[in-house]
Amino acid sequence: MRHIKLTIAYDGAGYSGWQIQPNATTIQELIQKAVREMTGEKINVVGSGRTDAGVHALGQVASFRTEKTIPLEGFRKGINNLLPKDIRILNAEEVEDGFHPIRNSKRKNYRYIITSDEFAHPLEVGRVWAIGRELDIDAMNKACEYLVGEHDFSSFRAADAHESDAIRKIFIVNFKRENKCYIFDISGSGFLKNMVRNIVGTLYDVGIGKISPDKFKDILEAKDRKKAGVCAPASGLYLISVEY
Amino acid sequence: MRHIKLTIAYDGAGYSGWQIQPNATTIQELIQKAVREMTGEKINVVGSGRTDAGVHALGQVASFRTEKTIPLEGFRKGINNLLPKDIRILNAEEVEDGFHPIRNSKRKNYRYIITSDEFAHPLEVGRVWAIGRELDIDAMNKACEYLVGEHDFSSFRAADAHESDAIRKIFIVNFKRENKCYIFDISGSGFLKNMVRNIVGTLYDVGIGKISPDKFKDILEAKDRKKAGVCAPASGLYLISVEY
Repeated sequence: MRHIKLTIAYDGAGYSGWQIQPNATTIQELIQKAVREMTGEKINVVGSGRTDAGVHALGQVASFRTEKTIPLEGFRKGINNLLPKDIRILNAEEVEDGFHPIRNSKRKNYRYIITSDEFAHPLEVGRVWAIGRELDIDAMNKACEYLVGEHDFSSFRAADAHESDAIRKIFIVNFKRENKCYIFDISGSGFLKNMVRNIVGTLYDVGIGKISPDKFKDILEAKDRKKAGVCAPASGLYLISVEY
Repeated sequence: MRHIKLTIAYDGAGYSGWQIQPNATTIQELIQKAVREMTGEKINVVGSGRTDAGVHALGQVASFRTEKTIPLEGFRKGINNLLPKDIRILNAEEVEDGFHPIRNSKRKNYRYIITSDEFAHPLEVGRVWAIGRELDIDAMNKACEYLVGEHDFSSFRAADAHESDAIRKIFIVNFKRENKCYIFDISGSGFLKNMVRNIVGTLYDVGIGKISPDKFKDILEAKDRKKAGVCAPASGLYLISVEY
């Protein structure tokens, strides 16, 4: 039995997220359908984690097991031929049978892009959060420092989150300015449902001066979703890579 | 009578080009409809020139005349509210009544983006020409030199072109490499229908070694469309700006 690991990029705008669900077109479903069509096997494609509807990926990871001897490049090109153009398999490689895309992931890297423009540029529609104002990047970066390390992120998990515990470790997190954009990068051991978007929404409150960096720390420590800010729109979020 | 000049950006992927035509959704039509709805006047919106179906713009220019006293920012925001998100009015300014978007334009700047990847990245679908190979950029830039200055561009005009003469002046033209992309910039006094795309398609033949830079010069001098290469896909072309 071969075990194939895929690295996948997608524009999430047209899809109901990664995870297979009834009555909605999802990325996992389209890839699984393509692999099943190529192999004739009833294969399950398992991803490194869900991305929400509208969230993009530059390096999502998924894997599947097959008995077929199709070469790796054959898989990559063949699956791509069966997918819409806004989902692409960038790489296919063979991994040991024990590999698990979720359990073996050591680090995930996300990016969130906010533009200070009042609207997304036509070529960035669905790919940024347009806020129409400036943010205090120093205050936001001060708040970011409180996120580094191991914490209980209950304050930033989705109301309907299903994860068994909310402890996650953040390695690197910061905002940088590029032209009209505030670019938020966060790397961590893993992320709860909506965690990045809830953090960004609350850091936005810091950036507009609604709350102080210290108040942000209080929110984190409260372990209470009701204390945090809004969930930032999916459109600005990118899963950059998953490291193993 | 006021004369309002608009600077417009759009993602051309979803439209049948700039110019109003029957049974197709065009950018000029949507803007004109929005201006008519705002003013109640039977206004004509005149553009600096057509862009083909699928071609993008960062700085298309158009203008219209109105009796209404609506402030410029009111026009800009009001028109945007009536447009789809992938068409945006970036700026509205008042110009002298004699202004003409086509006749007064002194310089137009276009960009064409080719990627050496075999496919467009999911976030670049409809925005590049994916050729799946490398190009000889030095040979292409040598050929570009022959384009500079005033020439009869009959070899690079559309078969169904309607312009009365084919003489145009090119100020600057070159390819540069950025990561996996070959970025072609061209500035000229004006451009014939399909001229940029026909030039890029023929420079591609230089880049793959099918023809020499000197042969490219022969094609230019032949003033014969049948001598030139293919018309490069619309997806890679951007109208960057129009100068007056």
